[in-house]
Amino acid sequence: MIRHVVLFTWTDDATDEQKAAVPAALEKLPAAIPQIRAYTFGPDAGINQGNHDFAVVADFDNLDDYVIYRDDAVHQAVIAEHIKPILASRAAVQLSL
Amino acid sequence: MIRHVVLFTWTDDATDEQKAAVPAALEKLPAAIPQIRAYTFGPDAGINQGNHDFAVVADFDNLDDYVIYRDDAVHQAVIAEHIKPILASRAAVQLSL
Repeated sequence: MIRHVVLFTWTDDATDEQKAAVPAALEKLPAAIPQIRAYTFGPDAGINQGNHDFAVVADFDNLDDYVIYRDDAVHQAVIAEHIKPILASRAAVQLSL
Repeated sequence: MIRHVVLFTWTDDATDEQKAAVPAALEKLPAAIPQIRAYTFGPDAGINQGNHDFAVVADFDNLDDYVIYRDDAVHQAVIAEHIKPILASRAAVQLSL
């Protein structure tokens, strides 16, 4: 299994509407990309200081399926339209489990 | 459910032995901390450039159980003895799912 983990921080001037548009767009991806086996995402719960703002954890059967997701046009459109305009920083790891 | 996600980068002078000691120590935590429901971790798979070096994804039934894990003495010892000595940067999010 490949578990893709990515954390984002948003720019200071990102609006609540822009932030809310990210999960609204992401939740459409499992229906669009059948290679996704499990997909969890959301804003930081606010428990600890100094955290990033948003996380995505996506599971795939294998590396090929992850790459299909990574390069998928619908996924790339979400990144271009909703994530990049408010992205301050990004941290990612792919785990081979 | 609370899903705790944390990514690390290691210092340039971290040795292979020091890096290998992190998963070796983490794999003992589920037996020591029964609040852990699922625990996945490991080094970045090397698929993409610019990634962080290591990830942990830990699932808990609720916030209280996550806080028990966060503050657990055995967990804190792993952080102090194995993670902090080679830590360059850390990014974390807790998801409420």
